[in-house]
Amino acid sequence: MSMRPFKRLIHRETALKIIMENVERITRVEKVPLGEAAGRVLATDAVARFNVPPFDRASMDGYAVKAEDTFGASAFSPRTLKLIGVQNAGEHFEGEVSRGECVQVATGSPIPMGSDAVVMVEYTVQGDGLVEVQSPVYPGANISPEGEDIKKGEAIVCAGEVLTPAKVGALAALNYGSVEVYEKPRVEVFSTGSEVRSLGEELKPGEIYDVNSYTLSSVISANGCIPIIRGIVPDDRGAIEAAVLEAKECDMGVFSGGSSVGSRDLFADAVEELGEVFFHGLQVKPGKPTLFGAVGGTPIFGMPGYPTSCLSNAYVFLAPALRRLAGLPRIEPRTVKARMGSRFVSKSGREQFLTVKLEEGVAYPVFKKSGTITSMSSADGYILLPIDLDTIDEGEEVTVTLLG
Amino acid sequence: MSMRPFKRLIHRETALKIIMENVERITRVEKVPLGEAAGRVLATDAVARFNVPPFDRASMDGYAVKAEDTFGASAFSPRTLKLIGVQNAGEHFEGEVSRGECVQVATGSPIPMGSDAVVMVEYTVQGDGLVEVQSPVYPGANISPEGEDIKKGEAIVCAGEVLTPAKVGALAALNYGSVEVYEKPRVEVFSTGSEVRSLGEELKPGEIYDVNSYTLSSVISANGCIPIIRGIVPDDRGAIEAAVLEAKECDMGVFSGGSSVGSRDLFADAVEELGEVFFHGLQVKPGKPTLFGAVGGTPIFGMPGYPTSCLSNAYVFLAPALRRLAGLPRIEPRTVKARMGSRFVSKSGREQFLTVKLEEGVAYPVFKKSGTITSMSSADGYILLPIDLDTIDEGEEVTVTLLG
Repeated sequence: MSMRPFKRLIHRETALKIIMENVERITRVEKVPLGEAAGRVLATDAVARFNVPPFDRASMDGYAVKAEDTFGASAFSPRTLKLIGVQNAGEHFEGEVSRGECVQVATGSPIPMGSDAVVMVEYTVQGDGLVEVQSPVYPGANISPEGEDIKKGEAIVCAGEVLTPAKVGALAALNYGSVEVYEKPRVEVFSTGSEVRSLGEELKPGEIYDVNSYTLSSVISANGCIPIIRGIVPDDRGAIEAAVLEAKECDMGVFSGGSSVGSRDLFADAVEELGEVFFHGLQVKPGKPTLFGAVGGTPIFGMPGYPTSCLSNAYVFLAPALRRLAGLPRIEPRTVKARMGSRFVSKSGREQFLTVKLEEGVAYPVFKKSGTITSMSSADGYILLPIDLDTIDEGEEVTVTLLG
Repeated sequence: MSMRPFKRLIHRETALKIIMENVERITRVEKVPLGEAAGRVLATDAVARFNVPPFDRASMDGYAVKAEDTFGASAFSPRTLKLIGVQNAGEHFEGEVSRGECVQVATGSPIPMGSDAVVMVEYTVQGDGLVEVQSPVYPGANISPEGEDIKKGEAIVCAGEVLTPAKVGALAALNYGSVEVYEKPRVEVFSTGSEVRSLGEELKPGEIYDVNSYTLSSVISANGCIPIIRGIVPDDRGAIEAAVLEAKECDMGVFSGGSSVGSRDLFADAVEELGEVFFHGLQVKPGKPTLFGAVGGTPIFGMPGYPTSCLSNAYVFLAPALRRLAGLPRIEPRTVKARMGSRFVSKSGREQFLTVKLEEGVAYPVFKKSGTITSMSSADGYILLPIDLDTIDEGEEVTVTLLG
């Protein structure tokens, strides 16, 4: 076994660029009922097959009138109209409104023939078959004309768009009971490292439970993909190659660990042998031993074995790749300004993620060592320290990127 | 049929306060596999049943040594140690390190007996059974002691906490293969209004498709609850009362429409009769005809019938209620500063949501009329205009709340 140090560490931004250039949106599509389509990515343009609304309708509760009958009306000089009927939403008033007449309408009602405006109920007094109108309306007032909202033939939601609640609503208005969306990518998750055991097994001396499969799965499902936990891969070249070939058959493969140098090299060698390694070794702390490559066109990540390194790199590097794969837009993480709660000194020569807890606008480092998962689980966010920055003083203003 | 105007419109903040006071977290719990627990709310404290790490381990690749053997070492004056073995992660080195000796270790390896520090591989030169150490280490250097991360008996994730990826990881480290979480609340969705038809049905003159059931379901599922679409309720008192009684059996009931005054009053009367109406009528535009009440302890929302009013009120009033019900923390929506792209004049006497599209830092109103679902579906966010503000000038700075 050789102990190869990393030869060339690459910068976070370069790494992200390489990742984004080598991950493509999934092409498989599936049909889902509209009620389950929220958050999915539409795969084919949805075109309006009819006008919405399909008829002129009232946009207020009130009375449908001929507008000219109301000109000059005021509270002191009302116009009195004869109430000839009621037109509710969903009903159909057969008559026609003539000069001096009106029909009671509710929001959403079709506009009765002959009328060209709606007087809001607030500006009327009703009694004894008559309606007093106390305010004038112009022709078209309080009417939504046919097709005002959506015109037949318009592409109302386009392929590639994420189905927000409003877009789901537009599809419902157009009677799309189901829609074609991109499938959720299937992402296989493997842990390597002979010291790692599956949950439920008995630990022997020197062994630890598999944490990374679960943190990675959580990040995968939070970013529009389906995680498939494949368990622990033994530290041998044959087993690792078999796992990489298995990952190649799904949409992305994410390996973590082993924290042992041996399995790290075995994994890099396997990806190199079966496909291509785009980078191996990042200029970030924690998280240096990160690999990105592809086998048969399937992107393959090799994440650090140490749980916090694995997770912070999953937020920074894996999440954007997952979103690209799923066709979801990249999300800029939320940041807040805070004051540093204690002095922090670091001399890593790498860009550094410092996890912090926020208390009333003050950021306190929770980082212990890169192996400590609790340092992550109690963190509210992280501060990104540039490569050339060694010290943050107490009270200094910092930008904290919030963790989801 | 009476056409009752709203008697007293209440302010958005008052409405939110009333909602939050009358919605409680669900109490039912369920057990889920850890791999599916991300984003859920833990229902019972998770206590560490053992130390993590369960042994002293190396936090760097390198050589386990007695620290005193390295004192004074430098590149010019290295200390030479005898390599007596290799201790990989997951393996167990049987021997003991004596003065002048070392054992090769990898990150995560248990620390061999006799050694008290790890020299990083970067500061060594290996050859011929010997290791040259070029840098001194202090006792404990590059070692994570047993229990450093999590101590046995510590409550590592507490009831009520949302399971972030890091917290899922902490639970994995502690061998929690499944966890008890609060159930996802079941929220039933009804549309009222005799003009509303289910998707797939043929529209008769004056009829429209059910949009609100789908926008509401999207908001419900995005906020940790399970939407159950119950379809269209006819505009009659008996049917509406039956629907309200059905909603009472689930965790929350959300009704929308009817946009007709008739069904609006029927619904309010039904909730009043069977339970309690906390408010009816909001000082916001669009979205005035919104009701909140409870029947048999189950919160009941009556949302406006007009799709955009229904949806904007779902974001502002329903989403916080859903999150409270699910035990999820309230999320402050993201906001961005922008310049107004055109002059906007409004005289509503109500707080007003103005939906806008953002283009290079400029906000353009997309609002047409409150019935137009497209005005929402092409919007990036909304501007909240105070009650006493009538005009926003072109170029004025505005705060845009982004829509998810």
